[in-house]
Amino acid sequence: MSAPFHRVAILGVGLIGGSFALALRRAFPDVHVAAWDRREVLDRARQRGIIDQAFEDLAAACRDRDLVYLALPVEESIRRMPEIAAATPADSLVTDSGSTKVFVCDAARQAFPPPRLFLGGHPVTGKELGGCEHASADLFSGASYVLIQDPGSQPASQDARAGRLAGVIETIGARLVWLDAAEHDRLIAFLSHLPQIAAVALAETVLEGAGEAAGSLAGPGLRDSLRLAGSPYALWADICRTSPSLDEAIGRLVGSLEHVRSRLRSDDLAEDFQQSARLYKILRGME
Amino acid sequence: MSAPFHRVAILGVGLIGGSFALALRRAFPDVHVAAWDRREVLDRARQRGIIDQAFEDLAAACRDRDLVYLALPVEESIRRMPEIAAATPADSLVTDSGSTKVFVCDAARQAFPPPRLFLGGHPVTGKELGGCEHASADLFSGASYVLIQDPGSQPASQDARAGRLAGVIETIGARLVWLDAAEHDRLIAFLSHLPQIAAVALAETVLEGAGEAAGSLAGPGLRDSLRLAGSPYALWADICRTSPSLDEAIGRLVGSLEHVRSRLRSDDLAEDFQQSARLYKILRGME
Repeated sequence: MSAPFHRVAILGVGLIGGSFALALRRAFPDVHVAAWDRREVLDRARQRGIIDQAFEDLAAACRDRDLVYLALPVEESIRRMPEIAAATPADSLVTDSGSTKVFVCDAARQAFPPPRLFLGGHPVTGKELGGCEHASADLFSGASYVLIQDPGSQPASQDARAGRLAGVIETIGARLVWLDAAEHDRLIAFLSHLPQIAAVALAETVLEGAGEAAGSLAGPGLRDSLRLAGSPYALWADICRTSPSLDEAIGRLVGSLEHVRSRLRSDDLAEDFQQSARLYKILRGME
Repeated sequence: MSAPFHRVAILGVGLIGGSFALALRRAFPDVHVAAWDRREVLDRARQRGIIDQAFEDLAAACRDRDLVYLALPVEESIRRMPEIAAATPADSLVTDSGSTKVFVCDAARQAFPPPRLFLGGHPVTGKELGGCEHASADLFSGASYVLIQDPGSQPASQDARAGRLAGVIETIGARLVWLDAAEHDRLIAFLSHLPQIAAVALAETVLEGAGEAAGSLAGPGLRDSLRLAGSPYALWADICRTSPSLDEAIGRLVGSLEHVRSRLRSDDLAEDFQQSARLYKILRGME
């Protein structure tokens, strides 16, 4: 298949940037992938065959590219946006992959006025271990991939560049979902950010309550429940700062815990287990 | 290998009782396994080759047995204990597999005065799906198996019957751990009961906050985090009622969530992620 984009820049070659590059190259062998990151990351990415060309200079990486893919922490994407906009050709498409979208899309409205196009994106996938050494061309297979269409703005989905990106997303095996930024951030606060924070808080509580006995007495349920507990803070710091609904979501989890706590000795607790089992089934496509 | 127990009764042929029977029969093909449960459960267990003989009468199932294995809800074990004690030979060993131990062991002190022997037990294993149709001879492989030794009481571990049960536990692949009942219940409240309640509360909160979008937008992290959310209330009702430290453990999780919530925009949150990652490593034998 001929590549919908021929000259791509990946800004930030971690788990997501590296995996996107690998998936892109597998689907479109003629695509040329440049990358910008720190020297040691670029060296590793080149050794693993993830990228064709390495830049330590951001503007040089963006020059003459028809697709620029930001796989940076959200706050860094925002901070570097003017520089990226200045270095990128006007007819190129710039997209990102951050886990919160409201602040990034706000910044992009300033930096990329029409006919420039910045399309906020969020591949809903990941692993608890970051870095391009864990990158995989299969990371997007079967995952949802959100693109942001804000209400009231010109429909990005009708721009030819957006159509090409949508095609790439489907070719690498992901399911495309259009959402507005605020709705995305609210849903993802509950579906991704809250589970992460819940895992951290649960892990801390278990460690405090059970200490080293956790090593010998924990069952498989705890290990699975706490898979996210291994995620490094570096991946989450700016998500925690830029997720508009996370504080509210935590408050609602606290409310739900207090509610369940008050029912421990009552058969009304059956209702809570039923609701919980409903989500279990939804997550497994059983409902 | 000759069986350390020749005539075993399994009271309650669900996931644990059924798996213990299967593991026992694989290790000791000459053992005779009787079982007591409802007729339809007994029929299923017999069809699956889990048991040799089925009883709907509890006393008949216990008669002439050298090992009686209670795999019942904790409160049912307590309620039926006098009847079990009356029907079981004085030199037999009676043990249970419930997830809380303080109340069961209190009741057993009354029902089984020396030289009778009731040994509280807890195989720290399970699946989110109960029933003998999910039973497996491998369920205990690599799992911890707690036996209860209360301080001040005659050391059960020196009784020959206890020694034989310890041998069985090791033969079926589990790791034997001796604990006193109160210590067990406290540790397991944090390591097993709290994670279950946390999964239920998180699932309810996510379902309320994200609704059906969970089906299309959730990543693999949420699915793993909520594996326990599928556990049926029937398995947990009496654990919730008889776990002495569960209320306190939920309170501490609420405290930890509020603490993390207050740090969402501070780099102090890195400390919480570090503690969390420590438990992640302990659970995987990496520390």
